[in-house]
Amino acid sequence: MATDHQTPASKQQQPSTVAFKIVIYEQENFQGRCHELTGPCPDLREFGVEKVGSILVQSGPWVGYEQSSCKGEQFVFEKGEYPRWDSWTNSRRSDTVSSFRPIKVVRTSDRRAGVKEG
Amino acid sequence: MATDHQTPASKQQQPSTVAFKIVIYEQENFQGRCHELTGPCPDLREFGVEKVGSILVQSGPWVGYEQSSCKGEQFVFEKGEYPRWDSWTNSRRSDTVSSFRPIKVVRTSDRRAGVKEG
Repeated sequence: MATDHQTPASKQQQPSTVAFKIVIYEQENFQGRCHELTGPCPDLREFGVEKVGSILVQSGPWVGYEQSSCKGEQFVFEKGEYPRWDSWTNSRRSDTVSSFRPIKVVRTSDRRAGVKEG
Repeated sequence: MATDHQTPASKQQQPSTVAFKIVIYEQENFQGRCHELTGPCPDLREFGVEKVGSILVQSGPWVGYEQSSCKGEQFVFEKGEYPRWDSWTNSRRSDTVSSFRPIKVVRTSDRRAGVKEG
């Protein structure tokens, strides 16, 4: 459920010690109203965001989904600028992004210290 | 390129020094012929892989694409097991995966001097 008060990023539980940050703009080229996310967002409409026009990823990666609750077509967002919908997809099936979550990063050597890989 | 000797995890500081590894199986439930990737693959057919039935991600994340040359619908693969096509997508538009690449991981504090990940 949506909460009105926002926990400061420094206090949020994070998968690692490093923060995720993505800024969603309602219009192309980073114009119009914007909303910043630092964690999973199952429905952008909770924040009054009706349309995603452009996206700035300050730290990632993230995955965006066509539908709310992280369903439907997926779009990967790595650190960088996405000024128009066609900068994050070339599948041309949908220009809608409704939910976001950070992508878990777990590498083999993160959990198996010292294990040699073949 | 791959190196034979591996730096212990405790000494690793950069995401780039950590290997990516994903195993592609031609049949569901990790059966049939398999092929291991440790870097970008623009066309699985280059390795004789005609069909992706299941996927094991040993270290990631990765993104798979419906079409070759990393085009078309995207599918995010984090560390874990994907025994059937419906475990990596619920968009039901396509069950085809033709190309793969590791996902770049750059967090804000990675660039800031002196910040180490735990």
